[in-house]
Amino acid sequence: MEDKFLELKDVQSLPDFRNIPLNRVGIKNIRYPITVLDKQKGRQQTVANINMYVNLPHQFKGTHMSRFVEILNEYRGNISVKTFHKILNEMKRRLSSDEAHLEVEFPYFIEKRAPVTGTPGLMEYWCGLHGTLTEHLDMVLVAKVPVTTVCPCSKEISEFGAHNQRGEVRVWVRFNEFLWLEDLIQCVEKSASCQVFSILKRPDEKYVTEYAYTNPMFVEDVVRNVYIGLKELNGVSWFHIEAENFESIHNHSAYACTTYSSTED
Amino acid sequence: MEDKFLELKDVQSLPDFRNIPLNRVGIKNIRYPITVLDKQKGRQQTVANINMYVNLPHQFKGTHMSRFVEILNEYRGNISVKTFHKILNEMKRRLSSDEAHLEVEFPYFIEKRAPVTGTPGLMEYWCGLHGTLTEHLDMVLVAKVPVTTVCPCSKEISEFGAHNQRGEVRVWVRFNEFLWLEDLIQCVEKSASCQVFSILKRPDEKYVTEYAYTNPMFVEDVVRNVYIGLKELNGVSWFHIEAENFESIHNHSAYACTTYSSTED
Amino acid sequence: MEDKFLELKDVQSLPDFRNIPLNRVGIKNIRYPITVLDKQKGRQQTVANINMYVNLPHQFKGTHMSRFVEILNEYRGNISVKTFHKILNEMKRRLSSDEAHLEVEFPYFIEKRAPVTGTPGLMEYWCGLHGTLTEHLDMVLVAKVPVTTVCPCSKEISEFGAHNQRGEVRVWVRFNEFLWLEDLIQCVEKSASCQVFSILKRPDEKYVTEYAYTNPMFVEDVVRNVYIGLKELNGVSWFHIEAENFESIHNHSAYACTTYSSTED
Amino acid sequence: MEDKFLELKDVQSLPDFRNIPLNRVGIKNIRYPITVLDKQKGRQQTVANINMYVNLPHQFKGTHMSRFVEILNEYRGNISVKTFHKILNEMKRRLSSDEAHLEVEFPYFIEKRAPVTGTPGLMEYWCGLHGTLTEHLDMVLVAKVPVTTVCPCSKEISEFGAHNQRGEVRVWVRFNEFLWLEDLIQCVEKSASCQVFSILKRPDEKYVTEYAYTNPMFVEDVVRNVYIGLKELNGVSWFHIEAENFESIHNHSAYACTTYSSTED
Repeated sequence: MEDKFLELKDVQSLPDFRNIPLNRVGIKNIRYPITVLDKQKGRQQTVANINMYVNLPHQFKGTHMSRFVEILNEYRGNISVKTFHKILNEMKRRLSSDEAHLEVEFPYFIEKRAPVTGTPGLMEYWCGLHGTLTEHLDMVLVAKVPVTTVCPCSKEISEFGAHNQRGEVRVWVRFNEFLWLEDLIQCVEKSASCQVFSILKRPDEKYVTEYAYTNPMFVEDVVRNVYIGLKELNGVSWFHIEAENFESIHNHSAYACTTYSSTED
Repeated sequence: MEDKFLELKDVQSLPDFRNIPLNRVGIKNIRYPITVLDKQKGRQQTVANINMYVNLPHQFKGTHMSRFVEILNEYRGNISVKTFHKILNEMKRRLSSDEAHLEVEFPYFIEKRAPVTGTPGLMEYWCGLHGTLTEHLDMVLVAKVPVTTVCPCSKEISEFGAHNQRGEVRVWVRFNEFLWLEDLIQCVEKSASCQVFSILKRPDEKYVTEYAYTNPMFVEDVVRNVYIGLKELNGVSWFHIEAENFESIHNHSAYACTTYSSTED
Repeated sequence: MEDKFLELKDVQSLPDFRNIPLNRVGIKNIRYPITVLDKQKGRQQTVANINMYVNLPHQFKGTHMSRFVEILNEYRGNISVKTFHKILNEMKRRLSSDEAHLEVEFPYFIEKRAPVTGTPGLMEYWCGLHGTLTEHLDMVLVAKVPVTTVCPCSKEISEFGAHNQRGEVRVWVRFNEFLWLEDLIQCVEKSASCQVFSILKRPDEKYVTEYAYTNPMFVEDVVRNVYIGLKELNGVSWFHIEAENFESIHNHSAYACTTYSSTED
Repeated sequence: MEDKFLELKDVQSLPDFRNIPLNRVGIKNIRYPITVLDKQKGRQQTVANINMYVNLPHQFKGTHMSRFVEILNEYRGNISVKTFHKILNEMKRRLSSDEAHLEVEFPYFIEKRAPVTGTPGLMEYWCGLHGTLTEHLDMVLVAKVPVTTVCPCSKEISEFGAHNQRGEVRVWVRFNEFLWLEDLIQCVEKSASCQVFSILKRPDEKYVTEYAYTNPMFVEDVVRNVYIGLKELNGVSWFHIEAENFESIHNHSAYACTTYSSTED
């Protein structure tokens, strides 16, 4: 039976004469259960959206898509900053390429207690790891953190109240030292008018309402505060921050972003 | 050439022996530019998401999908409560069916002036018309209206401030008399803590902040207020209301819904 | 400190005089890690989208949203057909309501081997459990299954080839006996032109291409085949099936659906 | 009344001492009806998703969000490659900034006749214009084009049939000469196994099935063909192409992308 299969022509390996190299070829948007490192509990099981690409030199017609899924299937039990290099190497080796790209994004849960009553609940953060291996390894840690923002202008000009809303802060970070998602998220959460919780009892609701009201911030303020916080994290060499407010008084968002690179200091 | 085409077998019209009638067969999620009635300006051009279905009696293998698009292409210049009956009839006739269903949803824009400065802007509402024609015509008008809600509990228990957020109220309405989308939307907008605007200058922002703060409402309150408002609209015989708050203090929504039918009064 | 909190007014429990009962109030779209039953491995950890609602009698102003999250937090380690009754009862008890609704949807993974080479991979299915408890318990099992469909008309009229595409079959099932998601999914997969795999080597690709080409089906055929299959599953008393083809020759979908109830036999 | 308003403090204009300039601040995801240029009909009305940003120098606390909507409201009747410069200039002027960014994306419809019967229908393409004005103007034209792809490997190794599917090709193009969306789209459509239609009668379906089967292409082939086509368009100085196949035999996508810059030739 194997013999018969060996005769199936490998169309992807045919030569290509258009002389156009491709930056990335591979599989996109495959969902897979994975296990990631968890600062509190050691490991956390979650479900990821994954993209896997390699470059394709100009002389080949196509890549071998099934090999990406084979690699994913082997490593899914242990995907972390620490194993990315190995997975990317394996991609380069099996796909005979010079570059490999792996993007893994997933919901990540952290237990968080309500600020006054201490009632426990789990908060979801959309997180990710993006890695590229050429001669060198380039890794980016991603976190999307929901926050509360109270509008400083609204508070200042109104006799009472202030419009506020859910916002989302998204950060992409390059780093030289191991960085916990938990530390990255905490850095963002302390930079907004107030953090967000999955469960709040009445005393907690009083607390977050008053806390947020005394810390009014524009999206611009949030980005600047996160900027200051991230610069102080050990080993961070580059980051991009964006903040988006799902405005309670409009049907559109307020937005701000900026980028930092240690080499530009 | 035509002769040659006549010989192409009509597989859909083949008999089917599984004895299973199908409730709905047709095309789903086609986007098309359409023109709808506009209370202020007569007509408004927009882009719709459209579903078109008929029932399929058990003895036929399939329906003829291309005929739905032909009908859509003919009527796209004039889609309204007033022409739905005609379009549905055409669907029944050309697809040789007993029932026809047409669902048309689209962004609809209304000019709205900021409450104090009068600065003009356009507000988007996601609206729709759903129609079913059997022996009788059954029509449902749909509107999704963004609103502001201020939490009554947060206001009551906090010494200052109150958490608030963008919410969305969705209504589905059956009616005996012609009903303008504008009137339906206005009925919803006056039922929340405050309405939402596309443009607000500083005096307007002061106004909506204070207005909302003096009108705190839970999602439950919003649904009940819309309920009272819709019952007072002429010719409304049935409705379903749902309200969803994109909570500023949580990463999930608060939700409430209810249904009214005049025959249950 | 507790004393101080006891003084915080319970606004939700205030009387309401609008005389409008609400069908559902609660939390919507909260993401939570859960553990579900797995036919092969006993248990599977995944991440769910969850809605939790109760009814609200006309005399109360609001419900207590934080209690839903408390219940979710307690039961998240064991959510299945077998524990739904208990969770719904707990919702009724703690929210003092007559009805409780729980909707849990999640990606579910099943190991599946490529049809010829046997290469293992994980397939994702979007599944769910919806339950309502009034006097009685009403449960619905949900599964969304990707499939391949080859167009019978295209095959018949063309000299070679036939357009085919990914489709999705969605089923909602009521049952009297315990039903494994695996059995429900298998029933759907054998009803299409071919099932879908996460990994296929060349011999597998040859197999599925030829298998699908010899089993051409319209969306109408798929719905009817699933209908026949579900009726033969033990304990199934009601179901709704829909099939949607993401047509390879159009930018819209072909669609069919139907419903079965044992009481109408 | 005006006097009273003048006293409302302009919080955004307050000085900021964190010394962090922001790359982009503004409004995101506002939907607005706009009119764009149409090669056939002169003008086309559609509904756009719009982002508008300026840079914010380090010494200012915030930007003035309402001014973006004012500008949008003035120019919405005439948004095109030809007016972008003017709009961006107006943004820089009114927001007192050095840079302005405008991103406008919208469904765009082109009448297209079925290839054999000539039956007319409208095809939707998601298109866009992104512009940045600093000292110089930088413009990018965007088009997302649905196509059919037939797998060359599947065709080669199978005795009959070949898996095929809907794909999407996305292009971002910089240009020195005016470029019609219609020409950009046509260039993509002729680079895939077959183009996609909104309406096909039986003779048309036979035609596209056979046409696609005789033109099998991987995503890699599609990207390379579009590459060759775009290089031949007058005035194109840079482009990025990506192709994604919604595989009919998998539940994930196959993907390829590449970039061209005339300065690297």
